[in-house]
Amino acid sequence: MDRDIIRKRISAIRRELDKKKIRFLIVTSPANVTYITGFLGADSWAAVAGGRVYLLTDSRYTEQAQKECPSCKIIDRAGPMAGAVARLVEKLTSVRTVAVEDTVSLADFEQLKKAVKAVGCATHTILVKGVPPSNRGQDARDTMGIIETVRSVKDESEIATIRSAAAISTKALAQTLPYIKPGVTESELAGMLDFQIRKLGARNSFETIVAFGPNGSRPHHQPGTRKLRKKDAVLIDFGAKYKGYCSDITRCFVIGGMTAFYKKVYDVVEQAQAAAIKTIRPGVKITQVDAAAREVIDKTDLPVYGHGTGHGFGLEIHESPFLKPDGKGKLKAGQVITIEPGIYIPGKLGVRIEDDVLVTETGHKILTRHCPHSSLLP
Amino acid sequence: MDRDIIRKRISAIRRELDKKKIRFLIVTSPANVTYITGFLGADSWAAVAGGRVYLLTDSRYTEQAQKECPSCKIIDRAGPMAGAVARLVEKLTSVRTVAVEDTVSLADFEQLKKAVKAVGCATHTILVKGVPPSNRGQDARDTMGIIETVRSVKDESEIATIRSAAAISTKALAQTLPYIKPGVTESELAGMLDFQIRKLGARNSFETIVAFGPNGSRPHHQPGTRKLRKKDAVLIDFGAKYKGYCSDITRCFVIGGMTAFYKKVYDVVEQAQAAAIKTIRPGVKITQVDAAAREVIDKTDLPVYGHGTGHGFGLEIHESPFLKPDGKGKLKAGQVITIEPGIYIPGKLGVRIEDDVLVTETGHKILTRHCPHSSLLP
Repeated sequence: MDRDIIRKRISAIRRELDKKKIRFLIVTSPANVTYITGFLGADSWAAVAGGRVYLLTDSRYTEQAQKECPSCKIIDRAGPMAGAVARLVEKLTSVRTVAVEDTVSLADFEQLKKAVKAVGCATHTILVKGVPPSNRGQDARDTMGIIETVRSVKDESEIATIRSAAAISTKALAQTLPYIKPGVTESELAGMLDFQIRKLGARNSFETIVAFGPNGSRPHHQPGTRKLRKKDAVLIDFGAKYKGYCSDITRCFVIGGMTAFYKKVYDVVEQAQAAAIKTIRPGVKITQVDAAAREVIDKTDLPVYGHGTGHGFGLEIHESPFLKPDGKGKLKAGQVITIEPGIYIPGKLGVRIEDDVLVTETGHKILTRHCPHSSLLP
Repeated sequence: MDRDIIRKRISAIRRELDKKKIRFLIVTSPANVTYITGFLGADSWAAVAGGRVYLLTDSRYTEQAQKECPSCKIIDRAGPMAGAVARLVEKLTSVRTVAVEDTVSLADFEQLKKAVKAVGCATHTILVKGVPPSNRGQDARDTMGIIETVRSVKDESEIATIRSAAAISTKALAQTLPYIKPGVTESELAGMLDFQIRKLGARNSFETIVAFGPNGSRPHHQPGTRKLRKKDAVLIDFGAKYKGYCSDITRCFVIGGMTAFYKKVYDVVEQAQAAAIKTIRPGVKITQVDAAAREVIDKTDLPVYGHGTGHGFGLEIHESPFLKPDGKGKLKAGQVITIEPGIYIPGKLGVRIEDDVLVTETGHKILTRHCPHSSLLP
């Protein structure tokens, strides 16, 4: 990762840390570790101490870390993570308080607390800050941590990488179309799409959702053994992850001619999505974007979706901001969000259309516009 | 999930909870939730209160939960998890203390503590028990939680499912062989293997590792754009996950004839693996199995691997027991473990051979014996 980019990120984070008088922060969330170090491996923590960033990793990853993190001091820990932090704290004699992200597990936190005390630094108490709470589903989170807030606005290198990820998604879906024919199972089709993503040098942002027929009514359906039938509806929700960055697209279509009812539902969802996208610009309230989509469906006799209208994404598939009825704040230029309203009728059908949108200085840009909405099949 | 199986699991867990005087346990680890409920979805917690099991989920999963969890009481939470737990605690008036697994995030724990106090149950304090610590890599964990300990010994239905997962892995690898030819990239090959797994109705136990040539020396190499060359070595570490259960296989081979040095390394690894497998029976010390493999390599001039010799697996890819030099305890009948010694020479090569082994009453059974070690290519 480019030193200048990392330096800018650390400066932005330090400004926030200074406001809270945090001099030493332990970063445990994998995406945050990647953001401040460039490291794409696993099982590692980072520490921010003044302008310095430390990566605490182990022998499995030191080779990779040396390549990916030229601006970090790499610590090759042999024993437990808590001990490695304690030794670092001991070395940096000016550290009085260790702050740690509260996404850390309770077990790790307790070990860390003990280890920091044990090195004779009785004055080093653990101060819990950052507050990026519970990561269970996009609807569960409402406050954001320091690094998450900085990460929410993407820099140019991030936007470029997300564009590449979106382009790979688009291409992978196009290359998968020939395999969408009666007899293929949901699981097979998901596998073929994932294979195309791999072939294009990327991996999955999340586990691909492929739902045939009525299975589309479950927003988090897991692809199974159901075979595609003639005139079946297909819902595909997927994304390529490229150089650490996600994309997220949902497309729905019917093979062999759609019913009038499906067409009605599809058109309403598409109008709802267009209405929400139209509102996107810096300074607009998140709730306003969310409401714009819901209002379109509300005016019909069709049920409004229970999930959020969209979410930010980047290193993680669900990031700030979260576009939902009780969402907080306003959109900022540089944020990248999904817009994904849907209509679900259990036992019958489900339609969701999802695109990736960049908030620009003057409005917005759809990053997935090269991936056509419908008429996906000849 | 069969009611009788769940009942047996809950009985075993309650015996352990009784020893610790725990009457009400909140289960947050996804694999533990699956184990005691049968639920295969995400973002859900479970509660064990006496003989009763509650699944706390949300509207995205209630349909799935009703299918998968006939023996659970399903709670459809609309708001935060902590509030749902508090309401349940309030209803079950006999609950005085809420125990929670310490894999929970610090943020969730703090919310839970607050919510339980807020419902006027001042006597309900949170008691942290279970102690399934930090899940960062197989080498980081050394003590196990209550449910993890019970889960470590598999019941017949679990063993049957793991057998199926291993059979799918074997078949998927066989179907991938025709694609292993010069010019294919690591990423493509990983994608093709994953596709075969999907086609067979399963998914990945973990992200497939494919490493060509010297890349094999990094045990956690991420498949990249490197193309396969004539006479290249190939290392594939992968596993199919079927009905929630994992398998885990590593195979190494060379296309177009191996060097004498590669053959030497390969043979030593294979001998080390055989030596470890030979020791497997109920009652044998974990350290003894680990040492058996290391000793074989130690006697040569080749470097001994830095990771564990193997690990249990089941609902998770890394479970108790962990076979490493400082591992604790003895093997038990019904445990399913990997045996995976390796030799890594940075910049040159890496060879690891990994099979899945069931500890039987009288010894052991290799569950992956239908997947040949070498001569994988014609």
